[in-house]
This record gives sequence, C-alpha cells and structure tokens, in this order.
Amino acid sequence: MSAQIISGKDISADIRGELKDEVCRLTTETGVTPGLATVLVGADPASQMYVGMKNKAAGAMGINSQQITLDADTSQDELMGVVAGLNADADVHGILVQLPLPDHIDEGAIIEAIDPLKDVDGFHPMSVGRLATDSGDFFPPCTPAGVVEMLMRSGHDPSGKHVVVVGRSNIVGRPLASLLIRKAVGGNATVTVCHSRTPDLGAVTRTADILVVAMGRPEMITADLVSPGTVVIDVGTNRVDAPGTEKGYRVCGDVLYDEVAEIAAAISPVPGGVGPMTITMLLSNTVKSARLAAAR
Amino acid sequence: MSAQIISGKDISADIRGELKDEVCRLTTETGVTPGLATVLVGADPASQMYVGMKNKAAGAMGINSQQITLDADTSQDELMGVVAGLNADADVHGILVQLPLPDHIDEGAIIEAIDPLKDVDGFHPMSVGRLATDSGDFFPPCTPAGVVEMLMRSGHDPSGKHVVVVGRSNIVGRPLASLLIRKAVGGNATVTVCHSRTPDLGAVTRTADILVVAMGRPEMITADLVSPGTVVIDVGTNRVDAPGTEKGYRVCGDVLYDEVAEIAAAISPVPGGVGPMTITMLLSNTVKSARLAAAR
Repeated sequence: MSAQIISGKDISADIRGELKDEVCRLTTETGVTPGLATVLVGADPASQMYVGMKNKAAGAMGINSQQITLDADTSQDELMGVVAGLNADADVHGILVQLPLPDHIDEGAIIEAIDPLKDVDGFHPMSVGRLATDSGDFFPPCTPAGVVEMLMRSGHDPSGKHVVVVGRSNIVGRPLASLLIRKAVGGNATVTVCHSRTPDLGAVTRTADILVVAMGRPEMITADLVSPGTVVIDVGTNRVDAPGTEKGYRVCGDVLYDEVAEIAAAISPVPGGVGPMTITMLLSNTVKSARLAAAR
Repeated sequence: MSAQIISGKDISADIRGELKDEVCRLTTETGVTPGLATVLVGADPASQMYVGMKNKAAGAMGINSQQITLDADTSQDELMGVVAGLNADADVHGILVQLPLPDHIDEGAIIEAIDPLKDVDGFHPMSVGRLATDSGDFFPPCTPAGVVEMLMRSGHDPSGKHVVVVGRSNIVGRPLASLLIRKAVGGNATVTVCHSRTPDLGAVTRTADILVVAMGRPEMITADLVSPGTVVIDVGTNRVDAPGTEKGYRVCGDVLYDEVAEIAAAISPVPGGVGPMTITMLLSNTVKSARLAAAR
C-alpha cells in the first residue's frame, strides 16, 4: 500500500500563486499594496535566516516588505517605540517581531504592544481569544492555519472526523485545536489533544482519523501508534546526528516516516510538508490584513 | 452500586467560606475591600433574578456590590460610558454586564470595552487569549472554573485522565478544554471535545475517565453512552414540561441522572451541581482581582 503524499511544498506554491493574483488585484483596484514589516533583534543566525526567507517570499508576490534590524542590546523601550511606529504606519499591514527575543526583553509585553489588527503572527492574546471564541476578524497562527489548509486542499476535510493533536504548545497544538473545533469551514472536527502527560499515547493516537503531531521529538510516532488508514500530518522539524554524512546531521519529523507511510492513508513529509506552509500563511494573513484595511 | 454524589452546593459553601475569610483579611491588611459592579440593561425577569443572586451572594461575604440598572432603550454610547466609568473607578474590581443585552446593543463591543483587569466574567478576548496561552493574570470563565474546582475538591484531579467534554460553547466547552489542557494544577488532562457534528457520540463518551456534558439537551446522555466507573459532571440546566406537577415543569440536566448514577463512579446532580458553582467562581474572580489590585 502506498500512502498519498501531502506535499506542503506543492500546496504552498498553489496558495502563493493565488495570493500573488490577489495582491495584484488589491493594488490595482484599491490602491492598497499589502505591507509587511519584520523586526529582528540581534544576530542569531537561525532568526536571520527565517526573517530573510519571510521578506524574500513577501517580495516575490508583490508585498512591500521592510526588515528592521536592531542591535542585541536594544532596550525594551526602544523596541516598544519601534512597534508603536509600525502600529501607526498606514502602509504596514502586518508586523512580525521575530522570536525568540533577547533575555532582557519582556517578550509578552512586546507581543501585546502590537496592534491586533496587524498581528499577522497571531500570537497576541486578542488574536488567540478571537480565534478561541470565533469573534471578529482575527489572524490564525501560521503553522496551525497551514495544517488546516493542507488537510482541506488534499481532500481530507476534518469536519466530522476525529482529529488527534499530539502536543499542547501555544504555537501549534492549542491554536490548532481551536481552529479544528470551530463551527466553520476547516473546523467541525471532534478534537483530542494529548501531550507529555498522556499516560498511554498509543491508546489515543490509534483512535484518530487524522493525526497531527507537534511534539518536537524526532521520530517518536512509530507505526504501532497509528491505525491503518490514518491521515498523518507531521509538524516536527528536528535535526538529528547523522555521522558520516556531509553535514553531519539530517532533518526529520516527529513521525518515523518510512514505517508510518506503509500504513497511513496519507502523510506529509519532512522536509517539504508543514514547513513551507508556515511562511505562506504569514503572507496570507498579511494580504488579509491589507484587504480589511482597504475595506475600512 | 451507588455513585459518589459531587455536590456543587456543598463545595460552593466551602469555597464561599474560604473567600469570606480572604475578604476579611484583604480588608484588614491592605484596606482594599473587593468591589463588584453588575450592570443590567432592561427588565428581563431571568436576568433580574441572576443579577440579584450575584449581588446578594457578594454582599453576604463582605464584597461591596453595586447594581446599575438601565432602561431597555439605553444606547450603545450610554452603556459604553457606564462601562468606562466603572473601568476608572478604583473601588470596583469586577465588572459584570449581564447577558444577553438588547438587540440594538453590540454585545461584543461592550465586552471588549471592559478593562481586562476587571473582566471577572472572563469573556473578554484578552481573558480568553490569556487563558488559552497561560500568559499573565486572567480570570477564567466562571462555569468551567467551577467544573474544575468540583473535580479537584471531590478527589478527581483531571491530571493524566482522559476528559471528554460534550459541547463547544464559548461559555463552557471551549474554555473548559483550555483549562484542562493547561500545564498547571487542575489541568494536564488529555482532552477530547465533541459536539453536534460528532457522528458517533457514544464511541467517544465511552472512552472517558471523566465526562463533562454541556449541550443544553435534556437528559441526552443515557447510560449506554457512559462506561461503568466514569466520573460525570452535568453542566446542563433544562426546564422540561411536567404535566400534573404544581409548577408544570421540572428542572433536569443533560444527563439522565437515575440511569447514569447506577453505573458512574461519581456524578453531579441537577439542581445542586454546577449551578451554585458559577456564582461562587464569579466571587472568587472578584476577590482575585482585588488581591491583584492591592498588590499593584
């Protein structure tokens, strides 16, 4: 049996094509060009890379993007000032402060300083609360929104299905559960959230129609934890040692792919699965924000 | 076999006793007496009764309570003005606007106008978002907080247990799931949320260690939907016709009590179960708000 491969890379390319068209229409019809501002504090190589990828992807679809790079010793007040400036800038529709921030900065306070109308990362408590209560316009966090898009576009509408989410982080597990429970397109699932304190993980994961894994533990989901015919989305991206290879490491997910792909109905690979979707949903949120601004 | 009865009435009395002591200590030691302001718009008899009960219960434990009663034709702006006044009043630690509001009022806008630091009902998106991300101080919505207290105080800590929540309302099901998933005392449960779109409810409810029902459907949970030994909390309060009785109706829960009590390990009755807990947790939130204010 061979599982359907749910390629985040391909789905991502489709969505980016659609977004590019929408950016073009928005600009032509309303005069509003979506604008994304990214803020990077310090010189962490991984953060530099992520921010660079986000700006490049934004630029490629006609979004105006600007990167603000600040020294690692930037003070809380200075950073608050930068955020306030972007809040007030009508050309900026999305503000992304790259996390993690240096230890001397109160990360929560910075996130709460972002105007919820520009919170395209979806981490502001107002965004989380609006998502959790389905009230008003909100930007869903990018990774969970990407997981839902992957399911919908690969023919696995979660409505009426039992979705088991492994992991309860604020970035993936908990907001994903909120999205899937909603009385809305992409929602209406029966949702179970399990985590490190779940005594018998397999007893739960084997009951899933759709299994989403976001624990950050390399290849923890082995075939014995998955029932045949399950749809599996792997959110993990882990580096594990691979002695003898050129890089000395390899990238893998939270699912033992080769084994689980033998029995799953469908599975997302790592890399090329959820990864590319996260930036795509950031762009999608930015375009949505510009659309809402143009209508105000 | 006879199930343990989880009496919300008794647990509520215990908590109110503790709160009364805390109000006394707070007043004596910090000079801060907790203050609760309730706002009632219009003359709906049920709303009048609820608000009256809340103020009476607050007064009984030494909380300063004031009720503001406004005409049914009060405008949005007038109501916003009242809320702004209460936000600015240092003697008011909790603001409760009784829902539902008349149709011409934008309920969401009024809730969002309440200072989240005084949102003792826990319905402001900031409160919901803080609960869902476990960030900062927040007030959990009263009914779900009451359910968790009932479990903890009756010896059924949800940690490590599989809790099935039936119902996905913003008032009970969804915030209860948030509370139970938290990495905190009263949390650490594996949580499943099911609802009207769950195709085979019994297949899910029978897997529960703890079953919480909040659907608002009289006696929908029959014994065949419950495994022997389950702990059952019934959030429903329904009026059903009872011809030939003095009142012409009787009050029942979402659980067919007599049948389920035969096989459950523990069960909360209706009335006398979750009902009394809701007001108690409102008082608890008000005292917490005063405690936080005294420490600022």
